[in-house]
Amino acid sequence: MFNYTATYTDKYQLTMSQVYFLKGQKDTKAVFDYFFRKLPFNAGYAIFAGLEDLLNILSILRFDSHDLEFLKEQQFHPDFISYLEKFRFRGNVYSSLEGDLVFPVRPVIQIEANIIEAQIIETLLLNTLNFQTLIATKASRMRQAAEGRILIDFGLRRAQGPGGYYASRAAYIGGFDGTSNVVAGRDYRIPVSGTMAHSFVESYDDELSAFMHFAEVQPEDCVLVVDTYDTLNSGLPNAITVAKKMEEKGLRLNGIRLDSGDLAYLAKESRRRLDNAGLEYVKIAVSNQLNEHIIKSLMEQQAPIDVFGVGTSLVTGHPDAALDGVYKLAYSNGKARIKLSENVSKITLPHRKQVFRVIDSEGKFIGADAVTLADEKEVEIIYHPVYPFKSLSLAKYIMEPLLHKVMENGLRLKKPQSLSEIAQFSRNRLAKLPSEYKRFDNPHIYKIGISNKLQTERDILIDKFKFAFK
Amino acid sequence: MFNYTATYTDKYQLTMSQVYFLKGQKDTKAVFDYFFRKLPFNAGYAIFAGLEDLLNILSILRFDSHDLEFLKEQQFHPDFISYLEKFRFRGNVYSSLEGDLVFPVRPVIQIEANIIEAQIIETLLLNTLNFQTLIATKASRMRQAAEGRILIDFGLRRAQGPGGYYASRAAYIGGFDGTSNVVAGRDYRIPVSGTMAHSFVESYDDELSAFMHFAEVQPEDCVLVVDTYDTLNSGLPNAITVAKKMEEKGLRLNGIRLDSGDLAYLAKESRRRLDNAGLEYVKIAVSNQLNEHIIKSLMEQQAPIDVFGVGTSLVTGHPDAALDGVYKLAYSNGKARIKLSENVSKITLPHRKQVFRVIDSEGKFIGADAVTLADEKEVEIIYHPVYPFKSLSLAKYIMEPLLHKVMENGLRLKKPQSLSEIAQFSRNRLAKLPSEYKRFDNPHIYKIGISNKLQTERDILIDKFKFAFK
Repeated sequence: MFNYTATYTDKYQLTMSQVYFLKGQKDTKAVFDYFFRKLPFNAGYAIFAGLEDLLNILSILRFDSHDLEFLKEQQFHPDFISYLEKFRFRGNVYSSLEGDLVFPVRPVIQIEANIIEAQIIETLLLNTLNFQTLIATKASRMRQAAEGRILIDFGLRRAQGPGGYYASRAAYIGGFDGTSNVVAGRDYRIPVSGTMAHSFVESYDDELSAFMHFAEVQPEDCVLVVDTYDTLNSGLPNAITVAKKMEEKGLRLNGIRLDSGDLAYLAKESRRRLDNAGLEYVKIAVSNQLNEHIIKSLMEQQAPIDVFGVGTSLVTGHPDAALDGVYKLAYSNGKARIKLSENVSKITLPHRKQVFRVIDSEGKFIGADAVTLADEKEVEIIYHPVYPFKSLSLAKYIMEPLLHKVMENGLRLKKPQSLSEIAQFSRNRLAKLPSEYKRFDNPHIYKIGISNKLQTERDILIDKFKFAFK
Repeated sequence: MFNYTATYTDKYQLTMSQVYFLKGQKDTKAVFDYFFRKLPFNAGYAIFAGLEDLLNILSILRFDSHDLEFLKEQQFHPDFISYLEKFRFRGNVYSSLEGDLVFPVRPVIQIEANIIEAQIIETLLLNTLNFQTLIATKASRMRQAAEGRILIDFGLRRAQGPGGYYASRAAYIGGFDGTSNVVAGRDYRIPVSGTMAHSFVESYDDELSAFMHFAEVQPEDCVLVVDTYDTLNSGLPNAITVAKKMEEKGLRLNGIRLDSGDLAYLAKESRRRLDNAGLEYVKIAVSNQLNEHIIKSLMEQQAPIDVFGVGTSLVTGHPDAALDGVYKLAYSNGKARIKLSENVSKITLPHRKQVFRVIDSEGKFIGADAVTLADEKEVEIIYHPVYPFKSLSLAKYIMEPLLHKVMENGLRLKKPQSLSEIAQFSRNRLAKLPSEYKRFDNPHIYKIGISNKLQTERDILIDKFKFAFK
């Protein structure tokens, strides 16, 4: 539903690009790393999402006539504008697979392109991947909390504008079962669901008539919202009446939905009364400001809830609201590049690199990813990036390379994956992560180690600019 | 840049609509209120934003062939799908003016339409207005904190996907001076700015060459980022060198940007050294995880900062991340409607209504909006909606009606407003709000009062459903 053009960027990308262009550096090759520094939500892992969308957009990204007109107004140089007229992304993309578990510091994606193309796509890349990775991770936490119960995304109304479209997609990757968002369902084949709001009940003179009308027209998937006036004294008894009428016609009420009040108490009481009426099959759905902590609490209270409808907190990634992903130059013009910082842990890793997942003989992730130079073979030991006296021997482990070339010269190398394939892959990966890393609070810290060669290359650059550490 | 179609909605809107349709109620007139219950960010007011976008989308909203195909797959009834094929929004919209100050409980917009149209647009309306109002309000708080300094939105990279497009728009309404977001600048005529990232500096073998190249190509708007290696020992001295070289050619360095470290200290030290070099005119811009509290602190420390670049916190509306706006049925099928709640303050106000701003003889807002039935004249006293013993006599005040008919039968009644007109209107309104309501922490609470007639109508409905309060 979007028409992305190449002005979906920050102006400084264009300003810098113009300098490169006018200084004859337009063909300078550059490598940028996309990575994040901090896991959101105090989670032990993040789920990488947004790659398919990014690749789709990159494949067709250009400056359209409105863009070029606007850049003229902005006083960009006519020669540079002519260059932009023919702009395409023709770079290479080395990426983690969408749905994989990703961790701080190590590159999630590397972009290799001429420096102008690499700069112009930076904002789009960050905007797409930061958000979807945030939401897939949030969804995964809710999935952990809800165990096997059904999770439905109800968030579009409180989403950050059209960001809600991608939020529904990312939530599915992170483990949701469906969405209320029709357009996301249409485009990504996410199961869509939704039945009745309070307004439907209010639009009738009494609740029972509203329920009866609805059940008559919509008998196959009938979920009645029971808290418009009074859950236990009106909504629930009326729902039971309708369910019994439906039974007379050989039909079954699918469920009731609780949208206010003490959900644990109301779910238990509703379950009891439904069961007493012989309606053990009627499901109980709940909604209203849910988040992973409330879901966890409801589960701990053994509330008999079949379906959780989750909105705002899911689709906005509350309270973090953003992943801190960055895009840093690692190589350009034939040389490795570095960004220093007084905060040692913020110093970047130079060069084209590869990332390996370290896996034990049973196929479990051991809790460390290894970062090496792209062409290194036979790395035997990895070192903590800041405290090199901490090291890990890789002798007994399997090393799985994580960065795959998915785009070459601007062309995709693999066929697009469906959303359900991505979600399935993500579930498989999560199953290989030991439970301590999935723990809800204070999870084990998944580590990163760098090879000796990478460390050496980095330290040479640090040395060159070492006045920064005075 | 968006192609909204009418499946930008929650599925239950369509399910309910189908029931209305098949039960012969498609022409039932309904009135819905859009309002929110809680001000975000502990602010004393919110700034209403998103109306122009909403009206533009409503004017052209339809189900396209992909939508209809998908709804067929979803087993909607063929007659209902034929109806949707001709769907247009043909309702009336009564709205607060965009940029106005709005407060909880009172309707910000009322929609009057056949019930199917009113339901189908609900999600889009909430999605658009909740988000932009959130961000305009956030921006306004930053504007209060930054006093007269320049505020630039840098947020697109960390925005919630394409929500960033509207965030830049809303930030401008709330008082920002510009954005880095090129496409938003293109479409909304927001001033765009941006010069140089660290990657530019890193892509050269030394910082000074990078600065010199940049200044050569971009002398008119040259802002040098000075913290790539070491702000005070490398970036700043190099920037001073460049500024002096520029002076030789009769040019002036526009500014330096600090993007890490102790911004207050670095700004003061940079100012001192720039001034000592006779570069009093060189501006100091800062960025890096700013929010309204940090801006306020920097101002209190009298940091000599000219430009604040604000990203994540602005465009995501962190930490709230959402406005809790809702859309509630107030009238349908010839009758006033109500949603009850055990929480008395959540009971809705029935009927078509008007909202008045109460203004004193000097043109200042006195701190109360009055809600009445739409056709009431001469309201003399308003009452607290929950505690009617609290009342306010309106005798000596001017009553300004706030809800304007902006759309009739789906057609806009007023010419679209430019973003700068909206922003200017917003500033004018804010100037009429007494300072206690603009206070950063614990602001005065702006009150809402309802007319006696509205109160009576509401209480009749409460009475009818009063079992809810057992």
